[in-house]
Amino acid sequence: MHDNDLVPIDATTAERDCIVRRFKQACDSHGIVVPMATVSLFFHPVFRDGAFTANDPEVRAYALQKTLRAMDLGAELGAKIFVLWGGREGVETDACRRADEAIKRLREAINYLCEYNIERGYGMKLALEAKPNEPRADIYMATTGQYLGFIPTLDHPEMVGVNPEVAHEHMSGLNFMHAVAQAWEAGKLFHIDLNDQMPGRFDQDLRFGSSNLKSAFWLVKFLEDVSYAGPRHFDAHAYRTEDYEGVKDFARGCMRTYLILKEKARRWGADREIRGILSEMASNGIDFKLSLYSREGASKLLTLVFNKDEILKKRLPYERLDQLTIDLLLGVR
Amino acid sequence: MHDNDLVPIDATTAERDCIVRRFKQACDSHGIVVPMATVSLFFHPVFRDGAFTANDPEVRAYALQKTLRAMDLGAELGAKIFVLWGGREGVETDACRRADEAIKRLREAINYLCEYNIERGYGMKLALEAKPNEPRADIYMATTGQYLGFIPTLDHPEMVGVNPEVAHEHMSGLNFMHAVAQAWEAGKLFHIDLNDQMPGRFDQDLRFGSSNLKSAFWLVKFLEDVSYAGPRHFDAHAYRTEDYEGVKDFARGCMRTYLILKEKARRWGADREIRGILSEMASNGIDFKLSLYSREGASKLLTLVFNKDEILKKRLPYERLDQLTIDLLLGVR
Amino acid sequence: MHDNDLVPIDATTAERDCIVRRFKQACDSHGIVVPMATVSLFFHPVFRDGAFTANDPEVRAYALQKTLRAMDLGAELGAKIFVLWGGREGVETDACRRADEAIKRLREAINYLCEYNIERGYGMKLALEAKPNEPRADIYMATTGQYLGFIPTLDHPEMVGVNPEVAHEHMSGLNFMHAVAQAWEAGKLFHIDLNDQMPGRFDQDLRFGSSNLKSAFWLVKFLEDVSYAGPRHFDAHAYRTEDYEGVKDFARGCMRTYLILKEKARRWGADREIRGILSEMASNGIDFKLSLYSREGASKLLTLVFNKDEILKKRLPYERLDQLTIDLLLGVR
Amino acid sequence: MHDNDLVPIDATTAERDCIVRRFKQACDSHGIVVPMATVSLFFHPVFRDGAFTANDPEVRAYALQKTLRAMDLGAELGAKIFVLWGGREGVETDACRRADEAIKRLREAINYLCEYNIERGYGMKLALEAKPNEPRADIYMATTGQYLGFIPTLDHPEMVGVNPEVAHEHMSGLNFMHAVAQAWEAGKLFHIDLNDQMPGRFDQDLRFGSSNLKSAFWLVKFLEDVSYAGPRHFDAHAYRTEDYEGVKDFARGCMRTYLILKEKARRWGADREIRGILSEMASNGIDFKLSLYSREGASKLLTLVFNKDEILKKRLPYERLDQLTIDLLLGVR
Repeated sequence: MHDNDLVPIDATTAERDCIVRRFKQACDSHGIVVPMATVSLFFHPVFRDGAFTANDPEVRAYALQKTLRAMDLGAELGAKIFVLWGGREGVETDACRRADEAIKRLREAINYLCEYNIERGYGMKLALEAKPNEPRADIYMATTGQYLGFIPTLDHPEMVGVNPEVAHEHMSGLNFMHAVAQAWEAGKLFHIDLNDQMPGRFDQDLRFGSSNLKSAFWLVKFLEDVSYAGPRHFDAHAYRTEDYEGVKDFARGCMRTYLILKEKARRWGADREIRGILSEMASNGIDFKLSLYSREGASKLLTLVFNKDEILKKRLPYERLDQLTIDLLLGVR
Repeated sequence: MHDNDLVPIDATTAERDCIVRRFKQACDSHGIVVPMATVSLFFHPVFRDGAFTANDPEVRAYALQKTLRAMDLGAELGAKIFVLWGGREGVETDACRRADEAIKRLREAINYLCEYNIERGYGMKLALEAKPNEPRADIYMATTGQYLGFIPTLDHPEMVGVNPEVAHEHMSGLNFMHAVAQAWEAGKLFHIDLNDQMPGRFDQDLRFGSSNLKSAFWLVKFLEDVSYAGPRHFDAHAYRTEDYEGVKDFARGCMRTYLILKEKARRWGADREIRGILSEMASNGIDFKLSLYSREGASKLLTLVFNKDEILKKRLPYERLDQLTIDLLLGVR
Repeated sequence: MHDNDLVPIDATTAERDCIVRRFKQACDSHGIVVPMATVSLFFHPVFRDGAFTANDPEVRAYALQKTLRAMDLGAELGAKIFVLWGGREGVETDACRRADEAIKRLREAINYLCEYNIERGYGMKLALEAKPNEPRADIYMATTGQYLGFIPTLDHPEMVGVNPEVAHEHMSGLNFMHAVAQAWEAGKLFHIDLNDQMPGRFDQDLRFGSSNLKSAFWLVKFLEDVSYAGPRHFDAHAYRTEDYEGVKDFARGCMRTYLILKEKARRWGADREIRGILSEMASNGIDFKLSLYSREGASKLLTLVFNKDEILKKRLPYERLDQLTIDLLLGVR
Repeated sequence: MHDNDLVPIDATTAERDCIVRRFKQACDSHGIVVPMATVSLFFHPVFRDGAFTANDPEVRAYALQKTLRAMDLGAELGAKIFVLWGGREGVETDACRRADEAIKRLREAINYLCEYNIERGYGMKLALEAKPNEPRADIYMATTGQYLGFIPTLDHPEMVGVNPEVAHEHMSGLNFMHAVAQAWEAGKLFHIDLNDQMPGRFDQDLRFGSSNLKSAFWLVKFLEDVSYAGPRHFDAHAYRTEDYEGVKDFARGCMRTYLILKEKARRWGADREIRGILSEMASNGIDFKLSLYSREGASKLLTLVFNKDEILKKRLPYERLDQLTIDLLLGVR
């Protein structure tokens, strides 16, 4: 939930408090929780040149104030994850500022927010969301990978992770599951935005699984294999043709496809032929115990003689493995 | 220089030593140095399933051995930078292994190389080079940003940086200069591969500046502004139409365009109107001293009233700034 | 000018006539002419499923009526070119209709408009404008090439041509000048939309020449070489940072860059070294008079012996040629 | 089959005849036919600057001779379709020739081949195959649409059609089925190359259906709906990991997935709920009989009053329709 989805940008404190009170009551009476909060630093024209990275110090200060208030709001509503998407933290022309200066400004802002989080005792995790372009402007933090490189340079890296979005990574033609895997393996997968997107297009936000079933499958399989326990957030919107009922069709479709793919992932893992191929490859060779370096181990390694022709005789039946996956996806296995 | 550019992959130790001795003599007598060495872990079919990330432990061991020997060779030739490009560290189908497992294997290998580097006292820096695809296979480390996120998870992160390449980042339609700026700002720009590339195409390796003069200009300007002191390595190749003279035309063209753009970058920085616009924007507002968090500062920030309409009246003449850049590039200013 | 840029979509006939009368007076008194008119078949939600290709026959009828009225308006204002851009003639899902059926509907509509044009004696040329996506929907006529294939299937192909737009062709990573050349060579270049666009991004509509000077140069050179006499229409918009003065900077920049490149194209054509290379290549070989087929010619051709090694000795110094172009663009030649 | 797949490029006439005789015997004894022939105008370096469009007239003559001989070979083997793929008919730099000149050269060559086809009584159809880039060079005929625009400008347009390839159209991010539908509707779908390809990548030639099941489904559905009777040619290759058995797995997978999708297309067409939605939309409105223009009809159309709000109340349940498709693809319906 963006701050201004609930509270208008120019609401007085009294108006804000009234809205929030009524919203909380509505949530309580319907058993709805707010797991995640965020701030809009992109909609209002005041952010035409960026928010945390804007050239005007006054804009930067306003962006920070707006974010602190959105954190207050999130905390009040019980959110434990705070997402930051820098939709204007980029440039239409690189003439306007040095890119390294922009990164420094971004770091200062995130560090500031972390201190505030600590001081107020909110216990929030910050999840940073990348996107390559808007589309006329190049966003500085274009990929999840860039944020994974940025986070270790912060004062409180442990407090900050990422919120990858299918559509944003596919825009650049990248393998989304690989980005998710890197984030997960680094302990940084704090949140995820699920939708679908054709590579090379601008931000489509399609119904989950509606563009590419196979890449959606590898993603679901990964999240289930590692027992990802965070929110599975569908950040998509319905076709322009839809009415209210159609929007419900759309929302049901997102969840339905996820669940079907989850069941298929379970069956993939249990499939006898698939397991056979995978285990044969894994056992296919000696264990060289290379993971731990030692002087002796390295010396020994340097003396080994490898027979490349023999190695090439080992079968790697990946076409078969992939076709088994396709068969499973199509429901004919 | 790849190991197998000099020494055939199946050379005996005696053959190898003879080749290296003659090569060093040739370098000495022509005043040529070898600033960088690397290893080919992609050409031979034995790497059809990857090198450090391959499923077959024997392939992983062979890849490690081959890399240790390439480091020996690099050290013998005086190279202080060792580039690693994982051209086969990816997948044609994600069925073949878990992506997080691949990342762990990659980490083990790099950690091993770092220990070897320390033990042998080579004093090398490792520079990791990303590329999105090959083009049928998705490479795990697809962008410079992903490597910047990977490096802090290593045992010796200080020893490892990146080698961004124009073409590899442009393949995904990303702003190359932004990736370079992030690497630089993080102290990780150990090497750079200069060429040119149209966004969305496969690895073109065109003559520097021949595809997009403006993005080449921002890159040169950044490298010169920050006084980047590492190698400016032109990793490109001539059109297929060229003969030997044409290849020399091509090589001269790479360097010539760099130098012309360097001079234009100097003039950009000295241009009175450009300086005027930039300094007006920089002074445009109060300094809110936000960089250092304090409880009082945050409290005060939350009470400030920002007049968004006033802020929007401040001019940001970026079209003018960009046209001045274009005029300068075209030589009419 | 779109119909609804001037006349609101629900204006009465009286309101419409009043607006048009005042607009014509304003044009007359400022010496402004209206060379091109067009119709908005994309903005109103009634076109959510297409206009001429919509499934609902009522929408198709309305779209036709709206276009006839826009043609009336264009004729009244003196426009001799009528542009049609089918921004909604596509699909979010191909489940909704057969693609060949959509093409038939489009043909029926264009044929209808041509008959109306004839009957009313408007003497207009219709210029069809392609675009690949919107970005969630795939547009049926995605490229200028597709329209060039569609036009010969119409009842009055001579009346219909294309309106290529830089940004729309670059979106798909295509060489815009090549599309323009094909249209020109086929006698179908009725209008052109100039702006700039990075390949692989969604419709950026940047200032002409601001993204890629070299591709802009080849385009200007082509238009000037063939003495294209139609409108050079700048269909772009300023950065989001700009105020009124900034928009004027932007408009001036479009025209200025065109004119600078035009002068450079003239100098390219007159450059002694460039001319030398080109003429050497042209004379490089015998004329086989192959353009006219004859039985004897073909028989003779089949008996010729070609020496491929000799052919390969002929120099094709394209790197030099391209660097001369770069030098000229940079103003150092 | 390319000419040089069978006969080496520098074979003597005697060698050529011997090879062809043995090949025909092998075909006969195994019941194999050669439905299509083609010519390699891209592999040998002599075509470094193009074949039919090369600057050197000698290269153009050689390309023509080589193609005539390939047509002779194809005719001898019984091929009725002759595919032409101009893999070198493009540029690394547009400095080397005028693009309209290249198109004229291409037209001359194709016209020549058509005359030869007539004179020799081969009765072949020519199928032109587009591809956007190679990847350093922009190919002039980048999309199937461009060829559909080129063909009507030939002397014998009825003899010439297209050979669209999934991978080549997806490279530019275009909807392949739409291109196929346009070709079909124009009577120009003479041949088709089936494989799979992720948008925005270079020519992947993956196993049919292995990258995107949904776009493969729409394609199969279209070909089956229109009862396409031409060859379904799988132009793909196996993963680099495969051995001989793996290549057979791959070939079987191409055909298997096609057949599964064909059966799903049949069930889609017979699905009661899908049929209900489609027929409701089709009947949803009056028939305005617009297809035939008449003065009275147009006058009447101009007087109609359309109620846009009423039109917008008509349901277009495309999310439901698309999810039904997904369910069918996943085998859960």
